[in-house]
Amino acid sequence: MSNRSRPLVHPLDTELPQLRQGAAADDDDDPMVMMKDVQGMPGTPAALALRFFQFGFAAVSVAVMAATTDFPSVTAFRYLVAALSLQCLWSLLLAIVDVYALLVKRCLRNSKFLGFVAIGDGITSTLTFAAACASAGITVLIGSDLNNCAENHCTRFETSIAMAFVSWFLVSPTFFLSFWSLASR
Amino acid sequence: MSNRSRPLVHPLDTELPQLRQGAAADDDDDPMVMMKDVQGMPGTPAALALRFFQFGFAAVSVAVMAATTDFPSVTAFRYLVAALSLQCLWSLLLAIVDVYALLVKRCLRNSKFLGFVAIGDGITSTLTFAAACASAGITVLIGSDLNNCAENHCTRFETSIAMAFVSWFLVSPTFFLSFWSLASR
Repeated sequence: MSNRSRPLVHPLDTELPQLRQGAAADDDDDPMVMMKDVQGMPGTPAALALRFFQFGFAAVSVAVMAATTDFPSVTAFRYLVAALSLQCLWSLLLAIVDVYALLVKRCLRNSKFLGFVAIGDGITSTLTFAAACASAGITVLIGSDLNNCAENHCTRFETSIAMAFVSWFLVSPTFFLSFWSLASR
Repeated sequence: MSNRSRPLVHPLDTELPQLRQGAAADDDDDPMVMMKDVQGMPGTPAALALRFFQFGFAAVSVAVMAATTDFPSVTAFRYLVAALSLQCLWSLLLAIVDVYALLVKRCLRNSKFLGFVAIGDGITSTLTFAAACASAGITVLIGSDLNNCAENHCTRFETSIAMAFVSWFLVSPTFFLSFWSLASR
């Protein structure tokens, strides 16, 4: 790893010198240079689409759960709202970074940023999955084991949990791509 | 990837010719040759210890849960017993493979076997984590939200779930090590 400090996203006015510097580094097999462009890695249109859908499904999940009147009485449902809100914020943050990187046509694939994305995706996806599983266990308990769906908003709970699982499923590719490209450097 | 077929663990009587073949392949940078020996990767004593503890904690979790009389009435608890039993079998199987590899002093780090271990670990750890989260959600519902621990075996449920989480936590390093070494080839 070289000791040169270099910003993650470079402003447009310093782009040309930086590009030249990057090209020079490329020839030296510098580990800080950009990696092979795989769709789904940070700064690609596929990653932006994934982030957008992660954010959308997480937001719908939180909205549907928060719209039920009795969700605060169950700890797991409160935790679902908290975890999916965090997922929303994280996906929105990275979507903004991706949009910015696409607009200024810069590459985000250096190891520090990839490590940051992999750790963040790992934490948020674990929390989202845990919340979805805990809530699913309780919904199954209410619906199948206690046959008590008439008094509860089972359909709304199920919709919210399904959206949470979809959001988790969409975080997995971005996590594994970051982790894989970090390991294969 | 070469097309030569080569067994994962070689019997002792064919070891010397195989070793010579491996050494020859090493010189050619053949991707099928053994990788750097990292403790925790399949065929190392650390991996054997991890598998042993994964198996132990999963077995204790299943035993404690199955010892309660009312676990079959809750779907999530039945699922916990099923998922942790699968985890037991998987860890035991790989422990036996590790013991065999250590006894015949052979290396298990080729890409097919690492892929098999990474996929298997990924599936079993996801199932174990999902079961532990679902059961934890229900135990928190019984204990904190409904204050109904007097009629239920809350302490036993909690013990079983804690063991399941420990077992999941011990599967993670073997999964990430296989995945990392698969990606970094």
